[in-house]
Amino acid sequence: MKQLDYFFNPKSVAIIGASHTPGKIGYAILANFIGAGFERKIYPINPDTKPILGMKVYRSVLDVPEDLDLVAIVVPAAIVPKTLKECVKKKIEAIIIISAGFSEIGEEGKKLEIKCKKIIENAYTRILGPNCIGVYDPYTHVDTLFLARERCGRPKQGNIAFISQSGAVGSTILDWLSEQNIGISKFISYGNAMDINDCDLLEYLGDDDKSSVITAYLEGIEASGKKFMRIAKKVTKKKPIVILKAGGTETGMKAVFSHTGSMAGSEKIYSAAFKQTGIIEADSWEELFDFARAFSTQPLPRGKKIAVITDGGGFGVLATDEADRQKIELPEPSEKLKGEMKEVMPSYASLHNPIDLTGDADAERYKVVTEACLKSNEFDGVIAITLFQVPTLEKSVVDEIIKLHRKYKKPLLACAAGGKFTEELSGKLMTGGVPVYPTPERAVKTMKALIEYKEWHDKK
Amino acid sequence: MKQLDYFFNPKSVAIIGASHTPGKIGYAILANFIGAGFERKIYPINPDTKPILGMKVYRSVLDVPEDLDLVAIVVPAAIVPKTLKECVKKKIEAIIIISAGFSEIGEEGKKLEIKCKKIIENAYTRILGPNCIGVYDPYTHVDTLFLARERCGRPKQGNIAFISQSGAVGSTILDWLSEQNIGISKFISYGNAMDINDCDLLEYLGDDDKSSVITAYLEGIEASGKKFMRIAKKVTKKKPIVILKAGGTETGMKAVFSHTGSMAGSEKIYSAAFKQTGIIEADSWEELFDFARAFSTQPLPRGKKIAVITDGGGFGVLATDEADRQKIELPEPSEKLKGEMKEVMPSYASLHNPIDLTGDADAERYKVVTEACLKSNEFDGVIAITLFQVPTLEKSVVDEIIKLHRKYKKPLLACAAGGKFTEELSGKLMTGGVPVYPTPERAVKTMKALIEYKEWHDKK
Repeated sequence: MKQLDYFFNPKSVAIIGASHTPGKIGYAILANFIGAGFERKIYPINPDTKPILGMKVYRSVLDVPEDLDLVAIVVPAAIVPKTLKECVKKKIEAIIIISAGFSEIGEEGKKLEIKCKKIIENAYTRILGPNCIGVYDPYTHVDTLFLARERCGRPKQGNIAFISQSGAVGSTILDWLSEQNIGISKFISYGNAMDINDCDLLEYLGDDDKSSVITAYLEGIEASGKKFMRIAKKVTKKKPIVILKAGGTETGMKAVFSHTGSMAGSEKIYSAAFKQTGIIEADSWEELFDFARAFSTQPLPRGKKIAVITDGGGFGVLATDEADRQKIELPEPSEKLKGEMKEVMPSYASLHNPIDLTGDADAERYKVVTEACLKSNEFDGVIAITLFQVPTLEKSVVDEIIKLHRKYKKPLLACAAGGKFTEELSGKLMTGGVPVYPTPERAVKTMKALIEYKEWHDKK
Repeated sequence: MKQLDYFFNPKSVAIIGASHTPGKIGYAILANFIGAGFERKIYPINPDTKPILGMKVYRSVLDVPEDLDLVAIVVPAAIVPKTLKECVKKKIEAIIIISAGFSEIGEEGKKLEIKCKKIIENAYTRILGPNCIGVYDPYTHVDTLFLARERCGRPKQGNIAFISQSGAVGSTILDWLSEQNIGISKFISYGNAMDINDCDLLEYLGDDDKSSVITAYLEGIEASGKKFMRIAKKVTKKKPIVILKAGGTETGMKAVFSHTGSMAGSEKIYSAAFKQTGIIEADSWEELFDFARAFSTQPLPRGKKIAVITDGGGFGVLATDEADRQKIELPEPSEKLKGEMKEVMPSYASLHNPIDLTGDADAERYKVVTEACLKSNEFDGVIAITLFQVPTLEKSVVDEIIKLHRKYKKPLLACAAGGKFTEELSGKLMTGGVPVYPTPERAVKTMKALIEYKEWHDKK
């Protein structure tokens, strides 16, 4: 067992600052923990030992009769050092300091942070935070988020790891992921990174079997640039890392609170560093998860020859434009391959690439043409544009596409947009493991991310 | 009354090729027309005069006892010329040829198109199409779309005009607009542009009081480049035109069926031409409507000094990065302005720009700070990032923001993302006239489009 495991899979948890007052953070965390279905022991800690939510309350972690693996601290910053000392004495492995009021508020807070760091210096204890929302793990139900589930949904189990330096960015995206029915393996908000930083998390998640892709929203790089690059290189050989880096522009830098030891520099420097380490860069949080959804569900393409299949010529043209910009090849199918497709295609359909099944396309055309492309050596992946407004297109097209995704070891991305009817079918495709993108451009950029990562991965 | 008015506001309509068979295009159009609530006269035309949907059927338009303003033709391409002759004889003003099988299928179809063009040469008749889905007008309920409403919703009344050369792109977006509760003034799909082309439509919509912004998905430019530029320049002085141009890349060009007389050339040439004529270019259909939503609801900014207000630091940083890329200024508020804000702000909140209301923001902070920025000369517009996951933020923040939008003549854009709770509040903001964007980048790019158009508009 690695030490960071205690953050995600503790046998027992204490919440220091658990509150009797609904609405308070210390109450919300306890309530969420219980509501999440965490089945191991939970100990509320508060000097006022009246029960909270029917649970026995302890004055201090030192009063808890059992070993504690994980502690979440929500007491005011000034009291944190005293609390930490007790935790060290109790030999607690993992501590999440939710409390704010540290280096992000200036000199005084910084001093407090240094004081805290000293307390754990010779201990085995590791700290996440301060000034963070902590951890959400849908497998073990660790949930230190103080945000009510009505406002901030929690995503289901999945294989996307998500790190967010910022709690607000993290919770916004978690809420969105939950609504989109996209699963995650682990979520970590690490705030000021007093102890555990980006590198520690990347390294840990690199070895985590539940995580097949790592996504991160970062403001600064907390470790040294060299260390970050060394670890990123190691991890990206195993699994993709997709990063949204904020504060890269000159004015953006000023907007980020400048952390000591951050890897300073412009967007260009970051982009170059990311490229050298095989990190895929996203240009918005939408793109972060456009890419992650594909990495988490699709095999990697062997090359960059892609077939675009569509029932709307215009969306095909837009995909072609983006493929051109992204230097993705859309080769014309061979005569042999065209022959296979012709069997189900009307005379007026176009068998170039994009392959236009036209506005009276049906599920059979999608099935035969998509399968022909996935089976053939001529293509390394397929983008299936399925505009469900087309009146002849049966709902079963979704099942056919999912079947093909399962049968062939090539990336298959879909593109669709519209209203309720489309949302229902797109939802089915996504649940079936085929990510759906609202614009052809986003589908093509995502395919490019898969290609780029594969090229990196293949370099010895 | 302009002649193109007959397409949108006819006193009577005939559908040539109205069918007795549910599922057929000629049946669907008639059913949709009736279902749309078109209150004027509808005449189904078919050689088989058995009633359809309880309506009397006529053998030919020549048998209709009344004048006809608009005719939709859905008969096979080969029969279209004969039908057209009858329409000309009947002195019909406006004809929509839905039927495909013309120049898009090659030489033979092209000949047929030329033949049709000759028939209307000396007549007052104008033709939209062929190979198109025609017109949808939510005010008059003209609806020649053959797509069932269950699959393809129809947007409500609004002030965005939407032209789409491609029927599939058009219907996909209409369906999406309907789901998003975004209204339009008119939708026109013009297909092969045998007669009425992009220029005719831009010119017409330029004078249309119901349309305050024109959006268009174009593959080629059907008129001559010179004419297009002359008309575009004239129209953009009156109202913004936002265009998504497909087929601009080299391979994209090949994917577009090459229309004779199209303005050929690369993306760069198009972009330069658009810039010279004040057209705003969008890089995806999402962006097309990101921009349109703002143009249709917001006053134009007098300059490019923007305030970003946020309850999540990270989203503020992302907005700052994008503002830097877009050369939008985020000046720091003056001490005087900060003084006004301080009254409602906690000591730890940041009064730079982005103005960070922090994770315990409430509606009052949003109200006071947003109003201070809108009222002050220091800012020309506001981007309010409202992450509704924040537990202290009351639902009433939405009403406060809408009130401020109505009170001040400055653009106010919002940014939010998440699940059900956020969707509900974002929906209210949008209905109240404040467009909401899921990423800070999209909000900032949209603000930039407003600024760019204003700069163009101010040039004498």
